[in-house]
Amino acid sequence: MKIVSLDARDIRFPTSLSLDGSDAMHPDPDYSCAYVVLRTDSPDGHEGHGLTFTNGRGTEIVVAAARAFEDLVVGRSLEAITDDFAGFWRILTSDGQLRWLGPEKGIIHLATAAVVNAVWDLWAKVEGKPLYRLLAELEPEQIVSAIDFRYIDDVLAPAEALDLLRRMRPGRETRLAEIEANGYPAYTTSAGWLGYDDDKIAALVREASTAGFKHVKMKVGRDLAADARRAGLIRDALGAGGVLMMDANQYWGVDDAIKAMRVLGLYDPWWIEEPTSPDDVLGHARIRREIAPIRVATGEHVQNRVIFKQLLQAEAIDVLQLDACRIGGVNETLAVILMAAKFGVPICPHAGGVGLCEYVQHLAMFDYVAVSGSLEDRVIEWVDHLHEHFLHPAVVRDGRYLAPTAPGYSIEMLPESLAEFAYPHGVAWAGAGVA
Amino acid sequence: MKIVSLDARDIRFPTSLSLDGSDAMHPDPDYSCAYVVLRTDSPDGHEGHGLTFTNGRGTEIVVAAARAFEDLVVGRSLEAITDDFAGFWRILTSDGQLRWLGPEKGIIHLATAAVVNAVWDLWAKVEGKPLYRLLAELEPEQIVSAIDFRYIDDVLAPAEALDLLRRMRPGRETRLAEIEANGYPAYTTSAGWLGYDDDKIAALVREASTAGFKHVKMKVGRDLAADARRAGLIRDALGAGGVLMMDANQYWGVDDAIKAMRVLGLYDPWWIEEPTSPDDVLGHARIRREIAPIRVATGEHVQNRVIFKQLLQAEAIDVLQLDACRIGGVNETLAVILMAAKFGVPICPHAGGVGLCEYVQHLAMFDYVAVSGSLEDRVIEWVDHLHEHFLHPAVVRDGRYLAPTAPGYSIEMLPESLAEFAYPHGVAWAGAGVA
Repeated sequence: MKIVSLDARDIRFPTSLSLDGSDAMHPDPDYSCAYVVLRTDSPDGHEGHGLTFTNGRGTEIVVAAARAFEDLVVGRSLEAITDDFAGFWRILTSDGQLRWLGPEKGIIHLATAAVVNAVWDLWAKVEGKPLYRLLAELEPEQIVSAIDFRYIDDVLAPAEALDLLRRMRPGRETRLAEIEANGYPAYTTSAGWLGYDDDKIAALVREASTAGFKHVKMKVGRDLAADARRAGLIRDALGAGGVLMMDANQYWGVDDAIKAMRVLGLYDPWWIEEPTSPDDVLGHARIRREIAPIRVATGEHVQNRVIFKQLLQAEAIDVLQLDACRIGGVNETLAVILMAAKFGVPICPHAGGVGLCEYVQHLAMFDYVAVSGSLEDRVIEWVDHLHEHFLHPAVVRDGRYLAPTAPGYSIEMLPESLAEFAYPHGVAWAGAGVA
Repeated sequence: MKIVSLDARDIRFPTSLSLDGSDAMHPDPDYSCAYVVLRTDSPDGHEGHGLTFTNGRGTEIVVAAARAFEDLVVGRSLEAITDDFAGFWRILTSDGQLRWLGPEKGIIHLATAAVVNAVWDLWAKVEGKPLYRLLAELEPEQIVSAIDFRYIDDVLAPAEALDLLRRMRPGRETRLAEIEANGYPAYTTSAGWLGYDDDKIAALVREASTAGFKHVKMKVGRDLAADARRAGLIRDALGAGGVLMMDANQYWGVDDAIKAMRVLGLYDPWWIEEPTSPDDVLGHARIRREIAPIRVATGEHVQNRVIFKQLLQAEAIDVLQLDACRIGGVNETLAVILMAAKFGVPICPHAGGVGLCEYVQHLAMFDYVAVSGSLEDRVIEWVDHLHEHFLHPAVVRDGRYLAPTAPGYSIEMLPESLAEFAYPHGVAWAGAGVA
């Protein structure tokens, strides 16, 4: 089966109208994505779909970047790719001309993720399995052969990665069955966006508790007094046994973060997320030391496995918030999942946006079944927006993600949604006076 | 004076035909740039020009990114920008939708550099001064007000930056006169590209010595035995008193780098450049400790001031290779120049490519006149390619950059070059069967 075309599209949802997703650094996002379709010559019509989440303006740049990979992808067979998946990944990330634009970071890497995830989606569809099961049933040697160990082998060499995977082979079937029966725990961010008023927040927190969520996350950063007031309000609405997380979305410098958390620590946060720049490994390490026992989390903006490696080496984080399309797709997430296991740091994936819940459920479930073997201190983020546009949307019930059942990576969008929200000519935009 | 348009163009030179610029990670670059012109309503016809160096394919993505800044730039007056230059810089780097694509790294930051440098070019032209002199004659308060201290103020606060600048006020006129009379020392990379054969390399090294260069840099990484042979050959051709630098262009992992330098150390390199991933602060720190006294250099791919901050904090580098358009233009280079001064690490800027020599001479000269006050262990890279396309090309004589005299940032290209090398429709490409 050969890939015969790579199509990249600009899809945007006008979420800024309702301030869904508003935080200290992103006051008015239009949740969007660069959406990639790989067509094949398969008589069954198999296609691979992948996307990278964006925030509105600039999506056209990620689309242009995805198109730049066309010559490196079209014409290859799926079998040749999956037989040497790390080799294919390196062709994309180390192209002698394109790598100048990263390397392995920012827009070119966001585009890499969309393309790479589309290949995995295709593979899982061909195998007739949801991605998490495809991954969980691969042999340890196959997982390791999909990882580019360049720049991480001083901390995780292929042999050690193999050992980590083999260690968890026993019990795999039991854990798969358990995930299928009970799903995976979730937490919600739908309540705490910065642009919402107090009444809306309190109502949403109570609604979340009723819906079975024990963990609720709030946005902080712009105004310490207001953050403290909202934290008290959410704590009250949560009641005893509720867990509150805080997310500063990189608003603070290192010293600011330490000062702010000395105040917000009074509300007993389970973690502080993105206290400062995602690039600042040493800054996170210092913040963590100084605000202990408050736990430090980051990851949605961590650019690649090299920064994750250092966050782990420097003991800078307590929680690793893996993103499915910030780093270079499934192959690079495998590297990060294994490094986290080595260092004993739990993964609580970043979700929300467009399609991130659909994506990361697979990664967390694979992590549980084949790598960490534990659900302790692990929850997947859940935001209840925009799922209706997916062919097989993620489903959360009683505070748990249900195991996906459809073959693929769950990221394929409905043709009518792709048409309606195409930017700038879809009907959602053509009349909006924005284009 | 108001900015009335932002024009961004894709300019490429077919350098891959001669393997100029070939190294371990970039075997066949086509030196290129995203070229930005800001037009104004000035009756004198003042324009600001800026570019970001690229490597061929993908330049169109950086051009798309530069265009995404149009609404944030067009309509502003130069005076309003320079009155609050840090504020303007943050408008570009922290736009609530665009920052998702970085933040402050990769393609969106390369584009930021082209736009920001075009503003500085415009300002220097309006003031009638070469950029280095404009910078050197600004008051310390004005320099500090151009810097965004977000994410670095735990290491360099505005007050300390002011002190560093005030410390060097005495002697400024003398150093300016000295630079004008004697220029700034250079080293050459023109001899050691990986794609050249031994005879060509030996001839080029002898030519460089004759031309007054004491320092010569060679590319290493792909083949240790071949690197050692070529190092011996260059050492012979250099003669006594010659200085040899090595550049691995990120080819190695941390352990590989340490092993390789135990062999290549026999040839007494003055530094090893880019021994591994530019993102790996802790990796550079470990390499530096283990291969001492060989000095470690990096910077051309260091994405922003946050990574530079950590390289300095972790004592990971001996030489800081500032780039003019990898990080976010003049404003961010000022932050890095000041941090380097605080830590006592010399800056030896990255040049070559397209326009990098033209750019960085200004930064190094400003550093000498107003910040470091020293030329010790400081040399600017020089590569003798593509200068003929600039209106005011950088000039090196007897191994020294001559101080630029024309107003601006020396980055304006000749209209006929912009036309000929426009991609894909300029005559250099239209007939080449590449477009």
